[in-house]
Amino acid sequence: MPNFAIGVDLGGTNLRIAAVDEQGCLLEKVTLGTRVTLGRERVISDMCEAIRHLSAKYHDRGTLLGTGIGVPGIIDIQTGMVRESPNLPGWSDSPVRAEIEKKLGTRVILENDANSAAFGEKWLGAARDVADMAMLTLGTGVGGGIVLGGRIWHGMNGMAGEFGHITVEPEGQLCGCGNRGCAEQYASATAVVRMAREAIANGEAPGLARAANSDAEFSAKAVYNLAIQGDEEARRIFRRVGRALGIVLATLVNTLNLPMYVVGGGVSSAWEAFSPTIFEELRSRCMVYAATAPADPLGAETGASAKVEPGTGRKTIITRALLGSDAGLYGAARLPMVNS
Amino acid sequence: MPNFAIGVDLGGTNLRIAAVDEQGCLLEKVTLGTRVTLGRERVISDMCEAIRHLSAKYHDRGTLLGTGIGVPGIIDIQTGMVRESPNLPGWSDSPVRAEIEKKLGTRVILENDANSAAFGEKWLGAARDVADMAMLTLGTGVGGGIVLGGRIWHGMNGMAGEFGHITVEPEGQLCGCGNRGCAEQYASATAVVRMAREAIANGEAPGLARAANSDAEFSAKAVYNLAIQGDEEARRIFRRVGRALGIVLATLVNTLNLPMYVVGGGVSSAWEAFSPTIFEELRSRCMVYAATAPADPLGAETGASAKVEPGTGRKTIITRALLGSDAGLYGAARLPMVNS
Repeated sequence: MPNFAIGVDLGGTNLRIAAVDEQGCLLEKVTLGTRVTLGRERVISDMCEAIRHLSAKYHDRGTLLGTGIGVPGIIDIQTGMVRESPNLPGWSDSPVRAEIEKKLGTRVILENDANSAAFGEKWLGAARDVADMAMLTLGTGVGGGIVLGGRIWHGMNGMAGEFGHITVEPEGQLCGCGNRGCAEQYASATAVVRMAREAIANGEAPGLARAANSDAEFSAKAVYNLAIQGDEEARRIFRRVGRALGIVLATLVNTLNLPMYVVGGGVSSAWEAFSPTIFEELRSRCMVYAATAPADPLGAETGASAKVEPGTGRKTIITRALLGSDAGLYGAARLPMVNS
Repeated sequence: MPNFAIGVDLGGTNLRIAAVDEQGCLLEKVTLGTRVTLGRERVISDMCEAIRHLSAKYHDRGTLLGTGIGVPGIIDIQTGMVRESPNLPGWSDSPVRAEIEKKLGTRVILENDANSAAFGEKWLGAARDVADMAMLTLGTGVGGGIVLGGRIWHGMNGMAGEFGHITVEPEGQLCGCGNRGCAEQYASATAVVRMAREAIANGEAPGLARAANSDAEFSAKAVYNLAIQGDEEARRIFRRVGRALGIVLATLVNTLNLPMYVVGGGVSSAWEAFSPTIFEELRSRCMVYAATAPADPLGAETGASAKVEPGTGRKTIITRALLGSDAGLYGAARLPMVNS
């Protein structure tokens, strides 16, 4: 009988808790709203109640190995402090791990949410057959995570994998971080909507203008819908997404020479619209990629092909994530299974 | 009595062979010309003769642990093949390790020369007190190496650390690799001379024009000499060097969050001229750097300060290399000491 662990994906909107066994089977998933405005203690109480419920319910299925929690922000892995979390006001510089462990009486591991997602895709998703991988998560912002030798690479202060703030246009769009031309300004859902509104304001995009007028919550998804219907302005926006991601991926390939890079997060559902530009950019910008590209990069959907040839014959696979919004939940559940 | 190893730095111009003991003491260094035009076999014979000479001479000082050889090119670490080496015509796709091992009858380790230099700085140079570091080598081109957990990070095909081909200007100068705006086009010795000749051609740089006319071998060193004398055009060129390096370093800090980045190679002797711009770029472009910068980045000359504070208090140190042109030689000698 396989043991199991609890994974938590603590988002600014949703709080999701799952019991997952060692073989990666989902036993049960609970989705709650994150009651951010009621304060940290309330959210932690909601979380602990669900964790206790799942732990008790599956108690006779195996040993509970622990709880892993993906948090949107910078985590001090050693101390279990949340250092910074823009989406969770009031959580910065607080001893979140200690607070939860005290309530639960069991071991808890905190992790950055993008790192958890990378770890989930490595365990059960697109990168399940490789030991080394990186993942870009395209959501409201752009996050990332690196797994080396099967373990999350944190860097010295848990800040590794900030791919969203790699400069892709040195004099480009101002970013909230203070830099200009961060990848996040071209490849996040927020950026897709901004670029669409810019095109509308320039009077260049009648299709986008109509969509924006008819839709109070004009979103990246709406821009994508127009792109797949052939709207040239919408398609151009996703080519800009692909160009930014191509530059970031070329940098990662040149720096780390990994067998696999996974693109996930909400915006990755527009993969068909932006991925051809990614591969164009990579082929023209990255010698290492050109030397190691599979014959059919868009067909290389899983890590299997990265294993085929040993040594220098190994290929660079760039592919979309497979676990959707559950990647972080699975990755969080995996943490206590490998950190014992 | 400490054991020793032989390190070789096989350059396109010079072939240097050294005996180094386990404590990092140089026993003896031999410098030969690399007789590239006489063919690979001739160069390997010269090298093996010097290795045998040093091995025999220091035989009663300790056990010879092996020979490490830094080669300018892409090495298949598993097979010991040189895959590509623009500076060593006729060496590509040849079983160099097997050829040398056969001649010597002892174990040989091949390594990329920029990786060897990084490994040397990690062992005895600027990064001696940290386990994780990256090094940029600014020479004719721009190379790089990454050391993680005290070991060289090769990537899946030995191509990791190609920092010279990170894009810093998406529509910039065409590079030999096919990309536009590679760091190498702004931060190598070749780039410094090109930027100087461009400024001369534009009629903007009387000081540089005089220097170029009076010097048949107008070099990056000549541009640096003008910069330290206050020539505004020469200074501007080194600010461009610093800007390109700042963008690359911001990317590495965002990606890997290492405690130390070392800048070496011939152009690094112009550190005073370009490093202030590096730190300006880093502060404005890189949140992770801003959060982890030491109070006096230019004063942080060694790895010691990177160790002071544990956990998230650790600082990002960016500093110049300490071993000069011997970094690769020491790094190569270190290889057989740690790969047993």
